Amino acid sequence: MPGWDYALALDRGRATPLFLQLAQALAEDVRRGRLKPGERLPGTRRLAATLGLNRNTVLAAYAELQAQGWTLGDPARGTFVSPSLPEAGPKRSAAVGRRGRVPTHTAYDLPPLPPLQADPRPPPGVLVFGSGVPDLRLVPVAALARAYRRGLVRRTRALLDYSDAQGLPRLRAAIASMLAATRGLAASADDVLVTRGSQMALSLAARALVQPGDAVAVETLGYRPAWDAFRVAGAEIVPLALDAEGAQVEALLEISRRHRLRAVYLTPHHQYPTMVTLAPGRRMRLLELARARRFAVVEDDYDHEFHYEGRPVLPLASVDRSGAVIYVGTLSKVLAPGLRLGYVVAPEPVLARMTALRGLTDSQGDLPLESAVAELIEDGELQRHVRRARRIYDQRRHALLAALDRRFGPRLRVRPPAGGVAVWAEAVPPVDVEAWARRALAEGVSFQPGRRFALDGRPRPFLRLGYACLDEAEIEEAVRRLARSRP
Amino acid sequence: MPGWDYALALDRGRATPLFLQLAQALAEDVRRGRLKPGERLPGTRRLAATLGLNRNTVLAAYAELQAQGWTLGDPARGTFVSPSLPEAGPKRSAAVGRRGRVPTHTAYDLPPLPPLQADPRPPPGVLVFGSGVPDLRLVPVAALARAYRRGLVRRTRALLDYSDAQGLPRLRAAIASMLAATRGLAASADDVLVTRGSQMALSLAARALVQPGDAVAVETLGYRPAWDAFRVAGAEIVPLALDAEGAQVEALLEISRRHRLRAVYLTPHHQYPTMVTLAPGRRMRLLELARARRFAVVEDDYDHEFHYEGRPVLPLASVDRSGAVIYVGTLSKVLAPGLRLGYVVAPEPVLARMTALRGLTDSQGDLPLESAVAELIEDGELQRHVRRARRIYDQRRHALLAALDRRFGPRLRVRPPAGGVAVWAEAVPPVDVEAWARRALAEGVSFQPGRRFALDGRPRPFLRLGYACLDEAEIEEAVRRLARSRP
Repeated sequence: MPGWDYALALDRGRATPLFLQLAQALAEDVRRGRLKPGERLPGTRRLAATLGLNRNTVLAAYAELQAQGWTLGDPARGTFVSPSLPEAGPKRSAAVGRRGRVPTHTAYDLPPLPPLQADPRPPPGVLVFGSGVPDLRLVPVAALARAYRRGLVRRTRALLDYSDAQGLPRLRAAIASMLAATRGLAASADDVLVTRGSQMALSLAARALVQPGDAVAVETLGYRPAWDAFRVAGAEIVPLALDAEGAQVEALLEISRRHRLRAVYLTPHHQYPTMVTLAPGRRMRLLELARARRFAVVEDDYDHEFHYEGRPVLPLASVDRSGAVIYVGTLSKVLAPGLRLGYVVAPEPVLARMTALRGLTDSQGDLPLESAVAELIEDGELQRHVRRARRIYDQRRHALLAALDRRFGPRLRVRPPAGGVAVWAEAVPPVDVEAWARRALAEGVSFQPGRRFALDGRPRPFLRLGYACLDEAEIEEAVRRLARSRP
Repeated sequence: MPGWDYALALDRGRATPLFLQLAQALAEDVRRGRLKPGERLPGTRRLAATLGLNRNTVLAAYAELQAQGWTLGDPARGTFVSPSLPEAGPKRSAAVGRRGRVPTHTAYDLPPLPPLQADPRPPPGVLVFGSGVPDLRLVPVAALARAYRRGLVRRTRALLDYSDAQGLPRLRAAIASMLAATRGLAASADDVLVTRGSQMALSLAARALVQPGDAVAVETLGYRPAWDAFRVAGAEIVPLALDAEGAQVEALLEISRRHRLRAVYLTPHHQYPTMVTLAPGRRMRLLELARARRFAVVEDDYDHEFHYEGRPVLPLASVDRSGAVIYVGTLSKVLAPGLRLGYVVAPEPVLARMTALRGLTDSQGDLPLESAVAELIEDGELQRHVRRARRIYDQRRHALLAALDRRFGPRLRVRPPAGGVAVWAEAVPPVDVEAWARRALAEGVSFQPGRRFALDGRPRPFLRLGYACLDEAEIEEAVRRLARSRP
């Protein structure tokens, strides 16, 4: 990695000659790992200019270093840190660790943080029934790269400058029109906050709503990264049970009496992870309770696009007249998780607050990305992509249901989902699904066991099988491996 | 914005015929602003497919709408919402506002938030002495667009998938090597957290360190967005005075006795906004105090690249052996503010915590951007850009100092800065700088008055003149306007 100026602080007030100070400083840099064995030292001319020294001073320092055995080479071919160091290797103080030479402990105490649980990532070669990842092979990469390039070249200044924490107005307008058509939200560009994926939207909602000591009710089984976002904002997480009609919203009345209930977080469209759609009666009751008990409804509509069986279900936000709902959606599940784009529609006071917090979090969004995706929507490219992906995922859904039926029959109870990109299955009779997941991994297939979604952390006899990222042949093979590894 | 499926919820259980339900629902959508006057209704064939209806049902509904005067046109040319509506215009309930039809109030109370102050943005045509924005005309846009494209096309999967919350390993390695050379930090890729600009780094540091009731000491005058990041994390902000040697760090001893001092936030390289460099004795004393009193030092080295007078000054982090310093830097001031890239080097426990919080904030960085900038560094493109920008900004510094001297003479006391991209000037005798700023804006030049940097919000007789984004002719003209508008 050539080309950087090499900076050093020398003390012109000291009696030690500058060439010797420089040699000592460079030797110390080798000792503490700033310069690595075999690494090339900066050129003498460039170093002299950087440090405001006469080049002869630098040459004298380099000669001194070489005489002491720190370096090899000559000024013509270049000077390199000796691969065999004059001492038994760099000295390490106790505070200095393996990863470079940054201290390994802090000089201060860190406040407690709720325990956070990261999902392990399966090794390569494993067929992954993911958490709902789209198939990256379907992404219109050429169109995306073109849109990026057009934005950077034609709207250079606008995309490189400071901008609006709420998101590029053009993308907000495109998202508003998408939400009007597909979700029944009568939102304009001003009602939309663009975020980096739904995770940022949830994190901002948590920070806007929650004060330490507040409670937030969540579906359990449910989506842990959302709970963690509320937890680190200071919320106590309270469970809300599920049945065949979705979250048992009536329980919120009692919860709101026992806790300072600030919000309920839920996924009413395709409940995560169980894929149940919240029943119509419960939807209306939930909004009534929210209004009466003055709590917010954070509606995570994470995969609205993927609903297969005609008869669309509109989000709670489309019928919310009282300002209870904070509506969260994402394009990362439609396009690609690496392209972090989510959005929020919410009443003005909470949207303004979330926008202010967003400004303090990372100032603004990624403008080249926001512009590229706005263009994909304006050109109808995203619409075509959604339709194509929905058709393909529907085929995969059928392929998975057929393969599961063939390999497992009644030993796996599956409720065929009306939408989403995952199947939720119950092992009958119950088996140790955690053990199954470990054995499956050894066989080269990974899935999410029920325990991962449990607030109480206890095992459950369920498997979540996200099928979007596997093609039909891969699904066939993955189910074969699944059957082979069943305990 | 064509191409989206139009979703509606119809109730097959109701006695009302479906065609009438559909007509009523569409009329309601017009009334509540989901469909706008003049907008085209979805095609009948497509809508029938989306809703799982017979096309004749949709045709009957459209005929009904037209008979009631809601729409114009015919199935061949398309059906449009009538520009003159059958009622006196859309009915608005009290809860529904001008910006779309999203409720304008929340159904719940929002917890209090510290008051946040946004900087107004000057209108176009005004010459802006900005806060330290780089000149976007210098950005190597062609190389950047090429690097974006190469990444998206050649490393599609890697850039579109889930990734590491700590940042692309390749970019972390490139930043580590940059920091080793230019800052004297013996950091490896594992010691670096990539963030979206320094603002995210500060926000994460605040959330990792602060519990409600903790105090954070800040230089005043200072950088307000950093204070706000600490404030919304629950910190009380405590002032630390400045003099000609930078922050009066000795006062931290007393502060740490009176408060639960969790951290000090400062800009020791070129103090923001006064441009003073922290004196060597104070640097060592600060680290001593941090160790003894167990508080963190958040070092914001926001414009390290721009130091003109030989003799580099290395950051506090380069001599911190006790794990006191959280080092924050940014590439957004080197490249462009629209490209949000910052970095943190810190002891492992706090870096791990900040990485976990980052994962809950927005999962991961923008991979196409991270990959493109890694490539710019690997190719030496960023190094060349930094060197070129430094040369040009140095010329602009001289041009600004000369112009100020010529137009103001002793009425503006200027301490020529050894680095940075701004000049700090004192009006002598003191004038109402706020009034000056308002008159200057009317004359077509904008600058930052001292009050903007004051923790106590009181006026100060200072001007901050960021010159990087103005060329020499613009600087000349801007100073002329400045002189003309002086109260």
